[in-house]
Amino acid sequence: MPLFFDLLGVFFFAVSGSLLAARRGFDIVGSFLLAGMTGFGGGIVRDLILGVVPTAFVNPFYFIPPAIATLLVYFVAPGVQRLVRPLLIFDAAGLALFCTSGTIKALEAGMNPFSATLLGVTSAVGGGLIRDVIANKTPSIFDPHDIYAVPAMMGSGLIAMLWMLGIRGWTWELGVTAV
Amino acid sequence: MPLFFDLLGVFFFAVSGSLLAARRGFDIVGSFLLAGMTGFGGGIVRDLILGVVPTAFVNPFYFIPPAIATLLVYFVAPGVQRLVRPLLIFDAAGLALFCTSGTIKALEAGMNPFSATLLGVTSAVGGGLIRDVIANKTPSIFDPHDIYAVPAMMGSGLIAMLWMLGIRGWTWELGVTAV
Amino acid sequence: MPLFFDLLGVFFFAVSGSLLAARRGFDIVGSFLLAGMTGFGGGIVRDLILGVVPTAFVNPFYFIPPAIATLLVYFVAPGVQRLVRPLLIFDAAGLALFCTSGTIKALEAGMNPFSATLLGVTSAVGGGLIRDVIANKTPSIFDPHDIYAVPAMMGSGLIAMLWMLGIRGWTWELGVTAV
Repeated sequence: MPLFFDLLGVFFFAVSGSLLAARRGFDIVGSFLLAGMTGFGGGIVRDLILGVVPTAFVNPFYFIPPAIATLLVYFVAPGVQRLVRPLLIFDAAGLALFCTSGTIKALEAGMNPFSATLLGVTSAVGGGLIRDVIANKTPSIFDPHDIYAVPAMMGSGLIAMLWMLGIRGWTWELGVTAV
Repeated sequence: MPLFFDLLGVFFFAVSGSLLAARRGFDIVGSFLLAGMTGFGGGIVRDLILGVVPTAFVNPFYFIPPAIATLLVYFVAPGVQRLVRPLLIFDAAGLALFCTSGTIKALEAGMNPFSATLLGVTSAVGGGLIRDVIANKTPSIFDPHDIYAVPAMMGSGLIAMLWMLGIRGWTWELGVTAV
Repeated sequence: MPLFFDLLGVFFFAVSGSLLAARRGFDIVGSFLLAGMTGFGGGIVRDLILGVVPTAFVNPFYFIPPAIATLLVYFVAPGVQRLVRPLLIFDAAGLALFCTSGTIKALEAGMNPFSATLLGVTSAVGGGLIRDVIANKTPSIFDPHDIYAVPAMMGSGLIAMLWMLGIRGWTWELGVTAV
């Protein structure tokens, strides 16, 4: 189950990477590279800090989401390219999923709730940050018009608090619906 | 003691991050994020290379310096925002502290003095680099008008040399005053 | 032998870093810093993911390639600075070497061929990406006019396939000549 959510988060970020690649006029190879970096970036940082081999380098299935995202954006949705909105939506969806999955993975590894929240936010923010920095764009988390980073962080903190109180089951939905 | 110096270094870098965030017009959340990334960045890279869990993810106290820095810059010093000088001063102070603490931490972990110097410089340069790259600014270490990177590097090398000669006590001051 | 190829790859990337530093008007310290980051960047990311201490922080010899590259570009070839071509050539040469050495190192560490290919590409792309992001340039791997990333990736995949088939000797040349 966590694997499915993780792959879904990778997919959302990968789509946001491909959309930005399309706006920047990158070709399909560049689009796939940016999709992969955006999708894998946050998880790699998270796993390195936890001291485990990054999941993207263990499980070949992780290739599938960026591949689908690239093809989808490249062939199916060329008209969507110039719109800002879908990029933000996929970014926010990936952010919410990574916040919760990152926080839970850190808690399971025995981190204290405070640090786990920080790692959840780091892994969630990481992918989008790498995408925007590479494509020479002011990172969307710094956009003062959108406060979508705040609910994600609050969701991350909420999960850590529930964990402390002993509620460790399907709190996923809670975090996701917080956004 | 090393913890205090490390936290002080984080604080200096966090202030420089908040100052740049203010200049870029980021809101308080963005300011806190950039302060945290600048303050934690170098130490995270250092600890990952040393193969230990980054201190910022172990000790919740590390949250305090970026929080203070953000509030300080946001509420107390709005007039300071447009000045270039304070950013450079806090950057240089953080650089000097991280150079010495990074070199010493690497030496204590059993690295050879040459590599320890490199890691000290890497950890010192890392935070500011992350800050400038994220905020779309040519990194200040590449500014030909300021050679503040050089004394920091020399301080780092000096500490490694003193270590080799058996002088391992309070050489902190030496490195710091070198700048 | 692998050490020699690794150092050669570091040298190629370091030259590309120094060339870009020259074009940006950085001084010799900045040139050395960018040469080092470009040369070491990909290998550090590769080794962190593999869970070993980055070679650049173990073996002091790794300092030599960036130092030679910086001096070479700074003193010998000032007229070459404005040309785009040499930067691309050194970038492609470093890319090819890192793709093969990264893939082989990952295979030797017991990674599956698919993940090993991904890590080879990551380590090859890493250094140039860090260089371009720091110097505020759209990363050359995203340049639609040059498809030099594709042969490097194919070389990386080829090496992984040959490894699976039991051919593990001097397949270096194959990968390199692929470009």
